[in-house]
Amino acid sequence: MKPLLTLALGLTTAIASLSVVADEETEYAVETRQAVLHLVRWNFSPLVGMARDKVPYDAEKAQTHAARLHELMLMVPDAFAMDTRGYEGETEALDVIWENKDAFNEKLHNAIQASIALKAGAGDQEQLPKLVGAMGSSCGGCHDDFRVD
Amino acid sequence: MKPLLTLALGLTTAIASLSVVADEETEYAVETRQAVLHLVRWNFSPLVGMARDKVPYDAEKAQTHAARLHELMLMVPDAFAMDTRGYEGETEALDVIWENKDAFNEKLHNAIQASIALKAGAGDQEQLPKLVGAMGSSCGGCHDDFRVD
Repeated sequence: MKPLLTLALGLTTAIASLSVVADEETEYAVETRQAVLHLVRWNFSPLVGMARDKVPYDAEKAQTHAARLHELMLMVPDAFAMDTRGYEGETEALDVIWENKDAFNEKLHNAIQASIALKAGAGDQEQLPKLVGAMGSSCGGCHDDFRVD
Repeated sequence: MKPLLTLALGLTTAIASLSVVADEETEYAVETRQAVLHLVRWNFSPLVGMARDKVPYDAEKAQTHAARLHELMLMVPDAFAMDTRGYEGETEALDVIWENKDAFNEKLHNAIQASIALKAGAGDQEQLPKLVGAMGSSCGGCHDDFRVD
């Protein structure tokens, strides 16, 4: 085979391999943020249930869920670190997250603050509805702008 | 319509609705445990990288990953609380988990203990390979028996 053609084919193969790696990394990043947000909801739902008297209030459970929710919220910035614009699989994340990262980070900061307050007060049944409401609003504030409706 | 037929149809509809709810709950439980284990791996991988000198050791990062890994390990028992035997979707969890829950819980307990040791020692580069090795072995010990090969 002519050297230039060999080189060209080699390069094409290398680029294709890099592209597969990039796709796998993107897929992994998408799965990661979906996992974090799934577990945020998994821990937030029982707190909403208790706050609305749909399930009996249990101080210990409330504190465990609120502590886990907070730990998970701290993982959200890392989970959104990778810019996945152009990803063609299923995702609810809008491109505007990476087009306007400062605004995203500000909303995320608010949600993390709300999770700190919720963690601190989840052991107090009277405080719970207000704290859960504030957490829900801060989640919604981010979803409104940065997530598919 | 004859009352008995109406009753029978009503019951059938009710049972079908219950079945849909049960399916959704099972699906949610499967997604939840997959999310927990995805995030366990997400935090363990960089620790493995540092332990093997594939990525530069960074004490702060190592401690953060180890602390998160431990928090996530504490969620594993809850994530496996629901018996999902008979689930027809994609899962690597074997039925033996719920057939022999004590053995599963024992392996899980070992893995949680390993995560405590890893969290305590991740800030010490010299200790890291041994602690990561022990964590990996305890993960593997559970996967060998309870996860699809």
